Amino acid sequence: MKASVSQQQLAHGLGMVSRAVSPRSTLPVLANVLVATDEGRLRLSATNLELGISCWIGAQIHEDGAVTVPARTFADLINALPNDTVHLDLNTKTQTLTVRCGQSITDIKGIDANEYPPIPVPDLREGIELGVGDVKEMIQQVAFAASADEARPVLQGVSLTVNGSELIMAATDGFRISVRKTQLSSAVHQPIAAIIPARALNELARVAGDGEQTVVMVLPPGRGQVLFHMKDVELVSQLIDGNFPDYRAIIPRSFKTTTVISTPALLKACKQAEIIAREGNYVIRLNIQPGADAPGKIEISAQSEETGSSEISVEAAVDGPNLLIAFNVRYLREVLDVVKSPSVALETNANNTPAMIRPVGDQNFQHVIMPMHLG
Amino acid sequence: MKASVSQQQLAHGLGMVSRAVSPRSTLPVLANVLVATDEGRLRLSATNLELGISCWIGAQIHEDGAVTVPARTFADLINALPNDTVHLDLNTKTQTLTVRCGQSITDIKGIDANEYPPIPVPDLREGIELGVGDVKEMIQQVAFAASADEARPVLQGVSLTVNGSELIMAATDGFRISVRKTQLSSAVHQPIAAIIPARALNELARVAGDGEQTVVMVLPPGRGQVLFHMKDVELVSQLIDGNFPDYRAIIPRSFKTTTVISTPALLKACKQAEIIAREGNYVIRLNIQPGADAPGKIEISAQSEETGSSEISVEAAVDGPNLLIAFNVRYLREVLDVVKSPSVALETNANNTPAMIRPVGDQNFQHVIMPMHLG
Repeated sequence: MKASVSQQQLAHGLGMVSRAVSPRSTLPVLANVLVATDEGRLRLSATNLELGISCWIGAQIHEDGAVTVPARTFADLINALPNDTVHLDLNTKTQTLTVRCGQSITDIKGIDANEYPPIPVPDLREGIELGVGDVKEMIQQVAFAASADEARPVLQGVSLTVNGSELIMAATDGFRISVRKTQLSSAVHQPIAAIIPARALNELARVAGDGEQTVVMVLPPGRGQVLFHMKDVELVSQLIDGNFPDYRAIIPRSFKTTTVISTPALLKACKQAEIIAREGNYVIRLNIQPGADAPGKIEISAQSEETGSSEISVEAAVDGPNLLIAFNVRYLREVLDVVKSPSVALETNANNTPAMIRPVGDQNFQHVIMPMHLG
Repeated sequence: MKASVSQQQLAHGLGMVSRAVSPRSTLPVLANVLVATDEGRLRLSATNLELGISCWIGAQIHEDGAVTVPARTFADLINALPNDTVHLDLNTKTQTLTVRCGQSITDIKGIDANEYPPIPVPDLREGIELGVGDVKEMIQQVAFAASADEARPVLQGVSLTVNGSELIMAATDGFRISVRKTQLSSAVHQPIAAIIPARALNELARVAGDGEQTVVMVLPPGRGQVLFHMKDVELVSQLIDGNFPDYRAIIPRSFKTTTVISTPALLKACKQAEIIAREGNYVIRLNIQPGADAPGKIEISAQSEETGSSEISVEAAVDGPNLLIAFNVRYLREVLDVVKSPSVALETNANNTPAMIRPVGDQNFQHVIMPMHLG
């Protein structure tokens, strides 16, 4: 292999794939990044066997070839080089990659590219085309609700279902459920149901370029993988085996009290209450009070044996009877962080039944939170 | 106590003093910050018994008083409040501080201010006046060379000596020595010699405002303390007992080879070489070569059994015989990071005697590094 490439593009590409490197694997080659020529471009790939990321960058290819080099050393070196052309030259006999740039020459000892796990080549004709902006927003609004508990692998994933032209992502950790829908430009012939690791989706949101581009999602039959193909980047992830819980059965169909409130005001109040609440199991109480002559309000309070107590009042339009209900403040804060609309609706029935948070004026996003026991 | 104060100023003040808080002390009151009225202003103080920081902020004082409150809770709360007036109200009976701002009320449980360690009041007439900008630069150029080794407390400090109108700061960890001088506007009557913890000086550099202000340094006799007084901030530190090593004896008086080189070019080359060198004890070799017809150069190389090797060539004006010498690349990088001049002089005698780094055109800063053995 002999290639010349811009230092900036190479550094950017290494930044993209580096998150899939597994430095502490028992397989030493997984701490490396694959550098390979590929039809006139340079391909960089990294995988930890669960998640793989590849990216392609423009290059002058003088001689085809491939090698794997230690990812951290290679990325740090490229980042330290001046903004100039980087010349890569592989000695196939010693598997040493010589990196020349400006007044510097570095030899990096590599491992034969044949030892690297093969990277699947997708059939993009079977894929579903989605807008990158839409996908990033879906991931942001859903993936955080997945569980971090290793003992329940299914809940560490995001349920993806496609029926006709409706695509739904959903995640739950047993205490909350986040559901986001989108409409596809064309319907699929066969319904799809898969569980994708939340971590893989978060990486997808990170490497996916600007919102104007498109991403093609492919689920090759029988391979237990999902593949996201973008212009210069591709991400492949193992799917999670198992049955995703039927979250639809838990989402209440009707509510007694609907409270509409400013999203930033409620978020700010939650952040403030959390400072006291974090000393006491993160419980905050919401006292929802409809207005008679005056406008209604929510009084948000937190109490800690040791530190003290806090109370904030926020104006709200309350439709229905008053209610005192307690939540884990982190759950409330996390969902409010991803509500894009200026107003948010909090829908409740009783202090021991699930409550719904949804952006006002957007039917595509629903979030359900279980309340905590009032002490 | 009853006072009204701007949220922004209070947040800024808490940010200043918070670094002296010791959250894991056996004395619970040290996890608190002292909030006290002080001649029409509000004083915030924190101390870990070694280092204390106080700052004063403008406030409307309605009733004098003092209390200590948990530093982290108080600072996080104030940071979460809107940019508005904060009203503080102490219930002396319960030692609860009520914080009101906008639509929120928080009660924080405090500890009686009488339990807080007393903060020394300096006699500023005995002080030495210094420019804040000058002091910050001195600290930046010297304190990093102090040792982190708890077993050698004296080397964790910075030696401060004042003779006539010359003030010198010096630090050494046994492998390198950093020395910085400055001239005082007026001479002192009595020579001063003290060892100040490097950590305290780093905090001083952090809290000292912009470079135009002045700082008064006081060493009250027999108290084993140093006090730095600025307009709205005061820092007090315990001194370190012991004899500072006689570093002057180690600094060579003459050199055989003087190499003048671009500071940023040498720094960049060191950072690049470090990527390979860090896999092999951080050793880099400098091959210093005077030029005959062409200009001279330094070839900087690093080698690692596992990862590979690296070589960078940097143009230099070399005066004297050629030399191959090895250094710990971190030491070289750290001093180059604080050399302000565009060119730096590297002065050497042999590959086993100390080398000197000094900014070209600045007699006030000297840095000595012991070379490493050539393998």
